[in-house]
Amino acid sequence: MANFILKTNEFEPILLNRAEGSWIWDIDGNKYLDCESGMWCVNLGHNHPKVVHAIKTQLDKLIHRNKGFLTPITLEAAEQLLKFFPNNYDKLTFLNSGTEAMEFGINFAKKVTKRNKVLSLQDSYLGAYGIAKTSSFTSLEESKFKIPYPVCNSEVCDCLENYQANIDDIFRKYSSDLACFVLEPVMVSGGVFKPCKDFVQYICKKIQDSGGLVVIDEVTTGMGRTGCKFGYELHEITPDVVVLGKALGNGYPVSAIITNSSFEAKLSSSELYYAQSHQLDPLGAAIVKSVLEVFHEEKIIEKSREKNQKLKDILYGLNHSFIKEIRSYGMIFGIQILPKNQMSCEELILKLKNKLLDAGILIGFNLSKEFIRLLPPLNIQINELEFLKEEITKVFNSI
Amino acid sequence: MANFILKTNEFEPILLNRAEGSWIWDIDGNKYLDCESGMWCVNLGHNHPKVVHAIKTQLDKLIHRNKGFLTPITLEAAEQLLKFFPNNYDKLTFLNSGTEAMEFGINFAKKVTKRNKVLSLQDSYLGAYGIAKTSSFTSLEESKFKIPYPVCNSEVCDCLENYQANIDDIFRKYSSDLACFVLEPVMVSGGVFKPCKDFVQYICKKIQDSGGLVVIDEVTTGMGRTGCKFGYELHEITPDVVVLGKALGNGYPVSAIITNSSFEAKLSSSELYYAQSHQLDPLGAAIVKSVLEVFHEEKIIEKSREKNQKLKDILYGLNHSFIKEIRSYGMIFGIQILPKNQMSCEELILKLKNKLLDAGILIGFNLSKEFIRLLPPLNIQINELEFLKEEITKVFNSI
Repeated sequence: MANFILKTNEFEPILLNRAEGSWIWDIDGNKYLDCESGMWCVNLGHNHPKVVHAIKTQLDKLIHRNKGFLTPITLEAAEQLLKFFPNNYDKLTFLNSGTEAMEFGINFAKKVTKRNKVLSLQDSYLGAYGIAKTSSFTSLEESKFKIPYPVCNSEVCDCLENYQANIDDIFRKYSSDLACFVLEPVMVSGGVFKPCKDFVQYICKKIQDSGGLVVIDEVTTGMGRTGCKFGYELHEITPDVVVLGKALGNGYPVSAIITNSSFEAKLSSSELYYAQSHQLDPLGAAIVKSVLEVFHEEKIIEKSREKNQKLKDILYGLNHSFIKEIRSYGMIFGIQILPKNQMSCEELILKLKNKLLDAGILIGFNLSKEFIRLLPPLNIQINELEFLKEEITKVFNSI
Repeated sequence: MANFILKTNEFEPILLNRAEGSWIWDIDGNKYLDCESGMWCVNLGHNHPKVVHAIKTQLDKLIHRNKGFLTPITLEAAEQLLKFFPNNYDKLTFLNSGTEAMEFGINFAKKVTKRNKVLSLQDSYLGAYGIAKTSSFTSLEESKFKIPYPVCNSEVCDCLENYQANIDDIFRKYSSDLACFVLEPVMVSGGVFKPCKDFVQYICKKIQDSGGLVVIDEVTTGMGRTGCKFGYELHEITPDVVVLGKALGNGYPVSAIITNSSFEAKLSSSELYYAQSHQLDPLGAAIVKSVLEVFHEEKIIEKSREKNQKLKDILYGLNHSFIKEIRSYGMIFGIQILPKNQMSCEELILKLKNKLLDAGILIGFNLSKEFIRLLPPLNIQINELEFLKEEITKVFNSI
């Protein structure tokens, strides 16, 4: 299988060909509870009927057009998306992928500030290529601008004390070079870590006071994934630029960068110029609009909280010596694995993944960071969580 | 209008909301012959019924899935796309945008060759960001690796003589650093220039002999745009990596990089690793498959040649002092404009564009490069070309 496909990652010996809600089927009719939501994209479940209907309706009207023209649905989607935010933003553009939007956001910050350096946290994953990648843990480039951070959920803590000197040092040396602080509110690829709020607020204040921008990567954490609309709400900060992707299109490739006209006003038209084949395309906009409508009409985020809690109870209820730690924020779950007897972490993770797949549960994993991961659709059903509980308990007990 | 939309370019005061074939309608019911094919994407015309049908069918099955899994439609699309090539390739991956695929292609060449420099031609446009952008004319970065080139359509010429010394000099100094030569077979954004075939063949031979790769940007020139399936056929060369975008999805954001297993085999799994939310997604694959089917069933390329010729006759028939030169390759047309009396090139181009728009014809233009551009759908109808002839003649005569 996959003979013609470049092996950009390992492929399971299973071909998928149908999906609905939290479930995905292979060509032999076996079904799997998709606890990865595709690539963390279908927060509303696969093939949500209202979203599919919106796509079909738009397909009969207008898919694509030249960059010199806007469309009514693009303007409607933009307005609805800005209204969806808990604080005020008044400018955006729609792009294709999260990485592209991060590249745009970082370059935007560089041009607004006329500065060149990007500050990020050590475990951030910000994109597949470009500056977004070099600012991520997946780039092996050494950098003093990918800094260590404390993980903490407390309202009152002394985390900052241990890290303040490092931050102060960086700002003393480089504040006039720092275009932006780029933050993933919860580092999901990096291990499901939420940096300490005090620490985050301290950096944000430092950078904004020094004329730099706070650019937030909400590609994974946005659209209700953390239990809030956006992950930055967990940190009680006010970003200057917000980047969305993944769940914004619920399976369709559309992303966005959101900011304010006050920053746009600092740029010349040639600095602002950007052209991409599908930027602001009406098909993507129709999907964004329908996704936002489903969030409202089905109270997706409000209703997800009960399920977050139930899944938390299920996973924290697993009691095994090979579980080092469980970390969770909203509908993001990471289970840190320890080696067991003769089995390395890697062997154990692959064994868990395979046994769960056999049991009809699709999970995520990261071998180098030694954890497994669950990010199911936000509207996963209670009975589906009960199925998950039963099967995951059996599989974990069988190890 | 466009209050909430970042002004990444100028927007016309017209909202579009419907399209079919070569035509696009605004919200007041005015229709325009789309001589830009959207953003040069809808080579099959807007909302091609077979493509729309294929999307709708796939929407009812599977839109998106986790990167660890392939789908039957992805494998079928891959096989069909490889078969569509006039020469043998056996590996590909599907991505979202042309720029992303160029970034992938260039990075692939860098990893295969363990080299870092990219050679391109001065007027190339290879992408909106990243290395693709810095290798393009749109990046103002000075570089000795964006080289001048001769424009020529002759079968026998002495172009190479004037440029050989420069090429030889670059290869003498840098051949062990050159990862790839990245070529746009016809530079469309850059002014509709086709570099001399002898010159191109000479560089390709030099780079391949020295262990570097030839990476071809077919984002605009591919899928029949030049009158061949791929623009590189005009140069009679054998690329190592081919990048497709735009018309591959006929309006939907899907791109591809195509290469050979012999290059893949030189990379470790970590060097090959790449993960993007919508890479290899079944919805994009279904569209690619249906686009290829339409190319075959409707003999799009074969039938386009008569229309290329007719449009060529129309445009070359325009006889005005403000036309400096007309350049065309297949269904790509550029009209280089001269200032007229008190009117600067910029004023004249905007006047032509506006008058044509009023007459129901949507064209492209580049103010800094002082030309207007037509890249209509390949299956534009003869009566539509007659309408174009009538209106463009009137508008040009009115100047």
